[in-house]
Amino acid sequence: MRIMKTGLSAAACAVLLTLGATASAAEPEDAIHYRQSAFGVIGWHFSPIADMAKGDVEYDADEFARRAQNVADLASMPWEGFVDGTYQNDGHGINTDALAKIADNPDDFQQKQQDMMDEAQKLAKIAQEKDFRTSRAQLSKVGKTCKNCHDDYRAE
Amino acid sequence: MRIMKTGLSAAACAVLLTLGATASAAEPEDAIHYRQSAFGVIGWHFSPIADMAKGDVEYDADEFARRAQNVADLASMPWEGFVDGTYQNDGHGINTDALAKIADNPDDFQQKQQDMMDEAQKLAKIAQEKDFRTSRAQLSKVGKTCKNCHDDYRAE
Repeated sequence: MRIMKTGLSAAACAVLLTLGATASAAEPEDAIHYRQSAFGVIGWHFSPIADMAKGDVEYDADEFARRAQNVADLASMPWEGFVDGTYQNDGHGINTDALAKIADNPDDFQQKQQDMMDEAQKLAKIAQEKDFRTSRAQLSKVGKTCKNCHDDYRAE
Repeated sequence: MRIMKTGLSAAACAVLLTLGATASAAEPEDAIHYRQSAFGVIGWHFSPIADMAKGDVEYDADEFARRAQNVADLASMPWEGFVDGTYQNDGHGINTDALAKIADNPDDFQQKQQDMMDEAQKLAKIAQEKDFRTSRAQLSKVGKTCKNCHDDYRAE
């Protein structure tokens, strides 16, 4: 067995075999599901700190900082799921809001990714200072980077 | 409008309003979807480096290190999705493999989470040294922590 020869235990292999898509040879549906999952996880962490920023939930500085760090750690991840053949009307049959014009504007799309990553990193850093007003202001900047990209590249 | 008073821009609010579940008041289906998404994202990054470890894909030290770091960053995230009322047969009607015995063994479940987080952090660190054999060995240890938990708490 090749698996045994490589030094991976049978136990570990059993786990690996249960894992899903590989990025190296991802099917369109896997890439779409991946990026949607990544955005979902980002939303899970962003939403409660946005609620704090809006005043709907009491500001919890530690919780804000923890979730802001998670958002920053996640910010680089969704983008590798945006690959050719995975956009709207690409014939994959999967429900996605990602417009095909993404493929026509790679530089702009990449810049918008970078803006989001940069502002999210700043948010994580600022949140560690545990000041509500500066944290709220920076969260708003992150939100704007989301909107900037959605306005151009996400279906209504 | 309360939203305007808090200093969040209308643009940012528009984004926030499109976000989904809040962790603070998550419905069972949101928590289940969240943790499944988090595991899916972990699998997306773990699977290709496992393929390298198995010899199915050529070892790319930079790529291995990048994905190992992502796995380490993600390792702390799924667990907050495991809350009361979200396990199998809890009446939520969502398809989940998470066994209800998780709720009966919180200390053991938490220890298994910690084991996974610890080994994933070690993997990210070791992967930076860009040595195939040590990286492969540590990846196997991470895989074992997955299996240890799945054996006890995940349905077949």
